[in-house]
Amino acid sequence: MINTDICIIGAGPVGLFAVFEAGLLKMRCHLIDVLPQVGGQLSEIYPHKPIYDIPGYPSITAQELIDNQLEQIKPFAPTFTLGERVEQIEKQDDGSFIIATSDDTKVHAQVIVIAGGLGCFEPRKPEIQNLNLFEGKGVDYMVKDPAKYADKRIVIAGGGDSALDWTYHLADIAQQVTLIHRSDSFRGAPDSAEKVFKLAQQGKINLLLSHNLSNIHGNGTLTTVETINKDKETIAVEADYFIPLYGLTPKLGPIADWGLNIDKNAIEVNTFDYSTNVERIYAIGDINTYPGKLKLILCGYHEAALMCQSAFKFVYPDQKLTFKYTTVNGINTF
Amino acid sequence: MINTDICIIGAGPVGLFAVFEAGLLKMRCHLIDVLPQVGGQLSEIYPHKPIYDIPGYPSITAQELIDNQLEQIKPFAPTFTLGERVEQIEKQDDGSFIIATSDDTKVHAQVIVIAGGLGCFEPRKPEIQNLNLFEGKGVDYMVKDPAKYADKRIVIAGGGDSALDWTYHLADIAQQVTLIHRSDSFRGAPDSAEKVFKLAQQGKINLLLSHNLSNIHGNGTLTTVETINKDKETIAVEADYFIPLYGLTPKLGPIADWGLNIDKNAIEVNTFDYSTNVERIYAIGDINTYPGKLKLILCGYHEAALMCQSAFKFVYPDQKLTFKYTTVNGINTF
Repeated sequence: MINTDICIIGAGPVGLFAVFEAGLLKMRCHLIDVLPQVGGQLSEIYPHKPIYDIPGYPSITAQELIDNQLEQIKPFAPTFTLGERVEQIEKQDDGSFIIATSDDTKVHAQVIVIAGGLGCFEPRKPEIQNLNLFEGKGVDYMVKDPAKYADKRIVIAGGGDSALDWTYHLADIAQQVTLIHRSDSFRGAPDSAEKVFKLAQQGKINLLLSHNLSNIHGNGTLTTVETINKDKETIAVEADYFIPLYGLTPKLGPIADWGLNIDKNAIEVNTFDYSTNVERIYAIGDINTYPGKLKLILCGYHEAALMCQSAFKFVYPDQKLTFKYTTVNGINTF
Repeated sequence: MINTDICIIGAGPVGLFAVFEAGLLKMRCHLIDVLPQVGGQLSEIYPHKPIYDIPGYPSITAQELIDNQLEQIKPFAPTFTLGERVEQIEKQDDGSFIIATSDDTKVHAQVIVIAGGLGCFEPRKPEIQNLNLFEGKGVDYMVKDPAKYADKRIVIAGGGDSALDWTYHLADIAQQVTLIHRSDSFRGAPDSAEKVFKLAQQGKINLLLSHNLSNIHGNGTLTTVETINKDKETIAVEADYFIPLYGLTPKLGPIADWGLNIDKNAIEVNTFDYSTNVERIYAIGDINTYPGKLKLILCGYHEAALMCQSAFKFVYPDQKLTFKYTTVNGINTF
């Protein structure tokens, strides 16, 4: 059994910053994440992409932000259980919780903070025969390392921002990029769509609009993606990689069964401490909802700070919290 | 007359970040600050101090943070009126405002955002005869550049964090540091008090507890600070600089007369958009108050982001706001 003050579910940027704010109040944290590494979506889905709206950083890549945050919380020595999913929580008589994961790791904590981002999200998959046969053998559902696609023949499918954006980025890197979309207009940002149309006009990418994916073939690994155009003709595109980017389906997973008030896949919280309707359970970052909610990392940081002020009373029921500024006091560890 | 979408009162870190969030929504900003430079308290009071609780920065000095934020908002070309105090606002028939400063600069704006930090704060001054005679001639109310005190004889007065902290910092730099405090214990952080007691034990500073400031003397510039100990004896300390650090008195200034709901020197706002009770006037950062409020820079950043989503409807009444991520769309200027 792991013993901690606060068990944080989700080790993305908001969960990591909660460790810092908790540490200032001398509360220890253990983090659990279903992903095999810390960083949440930032490390998993877009580590190499620049983020422009972290206050004080004109531009920073997602992975750099995570690395800096890990450096920032080092003094507070958080502990981690990675690659396991939280399955169950059990309230104890004294108000604390025992949290159990898919691998039966057990954590005893005074407070639970859900910082689960979009939840246990899964890529939406196109309905094509054989798709699962080539997963990991040419079929990828997200771009983790663009360098992997250098000088390869890539087929991307989808009409949203992610498809447009990666088409644009990979056009420079790959040998050939084909973008397949079932409609003749895009759902993504007009700016991005314009860039992609321009690349197609310049012959730098192969754009197949009003095309429906029909099949994929291979020989152990992927060799061909087949689509059908509006004249019902089948077009075969040779490909080393097929990347369908149809978005992610957020799933709350087992959290949905903990008696929390849920609104459209998000956990309802109040805005004075980001607590849920269940005492000692808080929700911060993209997974929560309240009037005015914006799914921005910087908002999650704020939520983490206010949450810790409130959680303190459960961790130190006999102490009065005194608020101190780090600029005055520096960082004092345990 | 300066024309803008949003007039931001206060050019500290939170006001500056509001420019960024406004810029993403194609709203232009003009900032007014009573201080002669941007950066608010950070540049005015503690430019060289490290801040530890900006998410993603294990440590950054106050001035570096401001510099980075200026770089971040450069694409949105904000304009500034510095060294002038906002005196009056006048509501126009169409709902917009005309804002007038102490120097009669006039700004026409659709929305006013008060990001005034502690307001027009003034240093609390000890009640000593002659004090005003030596202001700028040896008497300083804040430490702007520690290097100024290198190899000088310094007398600091006060018992709070600021006095303790600067005693500790300047002990290394100055020729001699004397700390005078009327009580024999400190209001500041116990850690900081301990450090100062240790320095005194080691003979590195001169600590005068239970002393009351009585007088200062000089010859054009400051030469001597006099105090009275508990035995009613007068002690004269030779000094090049006298720095009374009794904190700042926040004053809302003319803002207090604009019909806004005020609670203990702070402007009441709601937490879904940080609007005040007066339509089209918002308050963000240290100057506002709401249940759970923490006076942290990172909280002001969050408030700035939510405020802009709400202000949009007054700047673009005919447009529907579409929320976009910078990671997907980058930064598009006007």
